Amino acid sequence: MQPTARQPEDPVIAIDWGTSSLRAALMSPDGAVIGKIATPDGIMFAGERSFEAIFRELFGPWLAQHPRAQVLASGMIGSRQGWVEAPYVACPAGFRDLADALTLIDVPCMTRIGLIPGLSIEHAGVPDVIRGEETQVFGALTSLGVDEGIFVLPGTHSKWVTVEGGRIIGFRTFLTGEMFDVLRRYSILGRLMTEAEPAAKDGPSAAFDLGYDLSRQGHLLHHLFSVRSRGLFGSTAPADLPDYMSGLLIGEEIREATALIDRGGRPSVYLLGRGDLAGLYRRALAHHGIEATVLDDGMTFAGLFALARMRNSRTEV
Amino acid sequence: MQPTARQPEDPVIAIDWGTSSLRAALMSPDGAVIGKIATPDGIMFAGERSFEAIFRELFGPWLAQHPRAQVLASGMIGSRQGWVEAPYVACPAGFRDLADALTLIDVPCMTRIGLIPGLSIEHAGVPDVIRGEETQVFGALTSLGVDEGIFVLPGTHSKWVTVEGGRIIGFRTFLTGEMFDVLRRYSILGRLMTEAEPAAKDGPSAAFDLGYDLSRQGHLLHHLFSVRSRGLFGSTAPADLPDYMSGLLIGEEIREATALIDRGGRPSVYLLGRGDLAGLYRRALAHHGIEATVLDDGMTFAGLFALARMRNSRTEV
Repeated sequence: MQPTARQPEDPVIAIDWGTSSLRAALMSPDGAVIGKIATPDGIMFAGERSFEAIFRELFGPWLAQHPRAQVLASGMIGSRQGWVEAPYVACPAGFRDLADALTLIDVPCMTRIGLIPGLSIEHAGVPDVIRGEETQVFGALTSLGVDEGIFVLPGTHSKWVTVEGGRIIGFRTFLTGEMFDVLRRYSILGRLMTEAEPAAKDGPSAAFDLGYDLSRQGHLLHHLFSVRSRGLFGSTAPADLPDYMSGLLIGEEIREATALIDRGGRPSVYLLGRGDLAGLYRRALAHHGIEATVLDDGMTFAGLFALARMRNSRTEV
Repeated sequence: MQPTARQPEDPVIAIDWGTSSLRAALMSPDGAVIGKIATPDGIMFAGERSFEAIFRELFGPWLAQHPRAQVLASGMIGSRQGWVEAPYVACPAGFRDLADALTLIDVPCMTRIGLIPGLSIEHAGVPDVIRGEETQVFGALTSLGVDEGIFVLPGTHSKWVTVEGGRIIGFRTFLTGEMFDVLRRYSILGRLMTEAEPAAKDGPSAAFDLGYDLSRQGHLLHHLFSVRSRGLFGSTAPADLPDYMSGLLIGEEIREATALIDRGGRPSVYLLGRGDLAGLYRRALAHHGIEATVLDDGMTFAGLFALARMRNSRTEV
C-alpha cells in the first residue's frame, strides 16, 4: 500500500542551512552519523553562486555513493531570501504537519530536496515566526523521548517554544542576540568596551549578575544607558561591560518570556545552546528559579532524520 | 566689591558644541542674537584639527570685534572626548551650582572659555549623566519664567529632567533614538524597510499608533521582532515599518519614564524638540494622557546667556 520508491534502508542527508553557515550530516538507515560537512556557505554568503551550484558541489560526492538517499533541509534556505520559500505552517503543529508540508526542490538528474516549513503564530493580531528551530525542537523531543516542555533556544533571535502532546503549541521570539550585537558594534555603549580579558577578580560572572539583577526592574531603554555611565565612572571595568550588558539583555528576555508564557503543567525547561551562551542563560534562569536542562544544540540532524523516516512511509522524498 | 573685569554691557558668545554639530550665537548685552554660526564641526568630526584651531577659526572674527565678549560653551565639548573634561556636578543642582563649577580654557592672546559642567545622579547605585541638556533646561526656565516642571528632551539619548524650585532635582536617560538608529541601519529589522514615502492611506500616524499601542504591554525585546514579522506577512507596508518601530520605542520610553518619575505636584510637562520628532512625542504623550507644551529646542543660547550674566557679577569669565 505504500506508494514510495524509497526504502527504510536508504540513508538520509540532513542539512541545517542557515543564514551564516551550512552544516550537514550523512546518516545511515539506523540514524548514525557517517559523514559530516560544515561550511560557511550560509544563504547570506552565497554571493554570485546559485544555491543549486553550492548544493551540487557540496553533496555530489555523497549522492554519487548514495543516489537514493533522502535529502531534507531546514533553516533559512527555505526563507524568502533562500532557495525557494517554504511557506509557514500555522501553530499548533506537530511532526506530521511538518512532514506533510515539505516544499520540494528538484535538482535535475541528481535528487529531490524536501525543505522543512517554518511555523507561524499570532498573538492578539501580532505575528511571530520561527524557521529552523522547529526542527531542533522536534529533534530534541525524539532524542529525549518526551512530548512536552519549554524549549529555550538562545541566539540572534532567541526562541521560547512550548510543546504539549508532542506538538508545538506556541512560541515567542526575542531580539536579544541581535540587540547585543548591534549595540556593541555600532552604538555608543560599545565605545568604552575593550576586547581585553575581564579582570580575574570580578570576572564576567559578577558583571553579568549585576546587569541581570538590574534587569529584574524592567526599564530596558533606561537601564541600557547605565552601560555607558558605569563605564564613564569606572564602576564597571571596560572589559566587563559586555557581560554587564549581556546580563541586562538576557535578564530582560527571561523577564518578558516568563511573563508571556504560561508554563502551566510543563515544569521542564530545556536549553538548546552552545558553550558560553548556554552557560549564561542557565545562570540567569537559575537566578530566576528555573533549573534548565542543557541539551546539545545539534538537534537539527535528529529532527531531520525523524522527519525523513516519517516521509519515507508514503511520499516521494 | 565686584572683582570682575567684565561688565554687564559686554556681549556674550554662546556655543552649543555637540557630538555632530556646533551652533553658536553672538548675543548683545540685552540678550538679542546679533550673529549666528552653525557648522558640522561636532567633536566627532574634528579629525586632525585641534579644538583650539577650530575655535580660533570660527570665533576669531567675532572676538576681533568684541574682544571682551564672555564666551560660554555647553555640550560634549566638555566631555572626556572633548576639549577638556568639565567634571560632572552632582544633582540636585541649580543655576548657581553650574555657574560656580565652570571649567575654564585659556585660548592664549584671544579669550577664555567657560565650559558648563554636566550633571550626574545615582539611582540605587546606578549612575546616570547629562551634558548639554542641563543648559537647555535652564534656558527654558528663564524663557518661560517658571521654576518647576518635567522637561522631556527627545533625541539620540532622550532625557527626562525634573525641576523643582528652579533646581534640577533629578533626570533619567533613555537610549531610544540611538536604539532606533542602530536597529534600522544594522539589524534585520531594517532590511524590509524602504525609503519610499509611506502609503497615503494609512500614513505614518496609523503605523506609529499601532506600535505605540503594542508598547503599552511592555515586552520590548519580544515586540521588536514584530517589525520583521509584520513586514514578512505584509500586514504593515515596508515604508511604514520605521514609524511602527518608532511607536514601539517611543511608547516604551514613555511607559518607562512615567513609571520611574514621580510627577507629584509638577503637572506641567514641556517638550524640547524639533519638528517631526517633537510631533511624534507629543502624539504619544497625548495617548498617555499627558498634554505637553512644545518648546523650541534652541534653549541653549538662553541658558548660556543667563549663566554668563550670573558669572558676570563676580568672576573672570
